[in-house]
Parts: sequence; structure tokens; C-alpha cells
Amino acid sequence: MAPVSKGPWLDDDEQKAWRSYLLMHRTLKAHLERHLQRDFGLSGSDFEILVNLSESESGRMRAFELSRATQWEKSRLSHHLARMEKRGLIRKEACDSRYPEIVVTEEGLAAIKESAPAQAALVRQFFVDVFGPDRLAVLGEVADEIVGTIGTHCDTDCPLEARS
Amino acid sequence: MAPVSKGPWLDDDEQKAWRSYLLMHRTLKAHLERHLQRDFGLSGSDFEILVNLSESESGRMRAFELSRATQWEKSRLSHHLARMEKRGLIRKEACDSRYPEIVVTEEGLAAIKESAPAQAALVRQFFVDVFGPDRLAVLGEVADEIVGTIGTHCDTDCPLEARS
Repeated sequence: MAPVSKGPWLDDDEQKAWRSYLLMHRTLKAHLERHLQRDFGLSGSDFEILVNLSESESGRMRAFELSRATQWEKSRLSHHLARMEKRGLIRKEACDSRYPEIVVTEEGLAAIKESAPAQAALVRQFFVDVFGPDRLAVLGEVADEIVGTIGTHCDTDCPLEARS
Repeated sequence: MAPVSKGPWLDDDEQKAWRSYLLMHRTLKAHLERHLQRDFGLSGSDFEILVNLSESESGRMRAFELSRATQWEKSRLSHHLARMEKRGLIRKEACDSRYPEIVVTEEGLAAIKESAPAQAALVRQFFVDVFGPDRLAVLGEVADEIVGTIGTHCDTDCPLEARS
């Protein structure tokens, strides 16, 4: 179909780079997740939660901390944690506050210990080594800049997000 | 907790860049999707399907084509298309084959026409302009290289993915 509108569009080069970026992210994510599922029976979401918990000070976090770290919506997080609890990867533990802590179990810790090196090897092969050190360093800088820019924007101009 | 294992790990600089990249992607995606939801009542998934359909030759695609374009699993795609159909954004139309075609409706087309320029403006502000033309061009090149590398790998070493 014809382009849907003339507006504040990206020019051809910008559009091409943006689409290449999106396709890279999608392709890489799907590739990492297929290996994770096939070799370790974990989904990308399982892995993300387990990485966050296993790297936390005490192997335990509150749901709002996990929600902030993953940027998942509350309902997605809560459904996913329920599924992980049934599979014995995490458990919920009452603590001082009204809200329980999410704790990684021995089984969850074993799953991340086993799968993380294989994921790291794939990240090296298909991301780090293709970028190479110089281009990777530039990417890291720009990425930090973008996160900072969105953060500043949200603090000042975006009350919707500042509240979340 | 202590690092979970010594293995084929990324070094500190590589790890930092990889994490910055992931955080950038997550932050940018969440930012774009919040605006989309707030200003146009669309989810990121709605938008992705509508972009694909509206840019196709005839505004219609088969489910397997959408699945390939989005890299979503069949069940996610089928559930999401059902929800979009209920909201009148797409419809399914019988065609020659056993499988119906997914067609963007007038309402779906109006939704993408309205929201796409606003999304493009955010992509410009928070991605394209922060990269700047030179760094953006480099990113586009590396991204294409990564997609190519994974594709080659899957053709030869990864029968699981070659089948999907």
C-alpha cells in the first residue's frame, strides 16, 4: 500500500538504520531465547527474572523492584512470577512489609548457573564480536545517552511516566 | 550475591556495553509504548501488526507471513490477532488457501495513520538525533551484519531454527 501519511517522518537513511536496529534486536532476542528454551527449558522472561534475583544483594527482591528493573507491567510480572513459583524457580516469602519478597530458590539458582555461560557465549559470538571493541564502546556511550535523555524528559515533561 | 559462575563471560567493558544496550532498548520501547497507549489507545503489539499490514502490497498478509515478520510465536500471534479483530482493527478473510488472510480494516488504517507520525517523531527525538548521522550509519551496518551472521549460522548449524 502507499505510505500512510506525510508527516514528521524519518528520511530514508534514518528509516533504514532504525529498521535494521529493530530487526537486529528481534533476531538476536529470538535466537538467544530459542537456545535458552531448547537447551535449558527456560524462557527469556524466566532468564531475565533469574538474572535480576541472582545478582541482587541477597537473592531476593520486592515485586516493585523487579518491575522497575524489567520495565514489565505489574500484571505481566505477577502472572509470570506465579508461573515461575509453580515450577519451583522462585518462592514468595513474607517479610516486615505488606508485600512479600521474591526469592530465588536453589533450583532457580541452579538453572541460572547452568544457562548463563551459554547465553554469554552467544552474546559474545553474535553481538560483541560482530561489533568489535571500538564500535561496541560507541554503542555503549550512545545507549547511556539515550537512557539519560529519556529519564530527563520523563522527570520534567512526562508526568505519566514519572508517576509509574 | 556472588557472581554465579566463572565461564565464557564477557569482560567488564563488554558486559557494560551489552547491559547499556539492553537498558536502552527496554527504556526506549517502554517510552514509545506508553505514548502509543496514552495518546492513541494502541499497544506496541497492535502497532507492530498494523505497520506490517499497512506496508504490505495489498494491506493483507497470511498469519505465517506476519509471524515471520514479527518473530512472534504462533500462539502469541493468534491470540493477539483475535483481540485486534474484536476491536475492529483487522479482519480475517477467506481466500483460496485453507488459511484466511489477515486484512487491515478502515479503522485499523485510520489508527496507524494517526499514530505513526507521533511515533516517528519520538524515534527521531530519542534515537536518531541522539545517535547523529555518523554513529547511526555505523549502527545500521553492524545491525545488518549481525542479522546476516545469525541467518548464516541458522542455515548451517541450527536445524531447530531453520525449520521454524
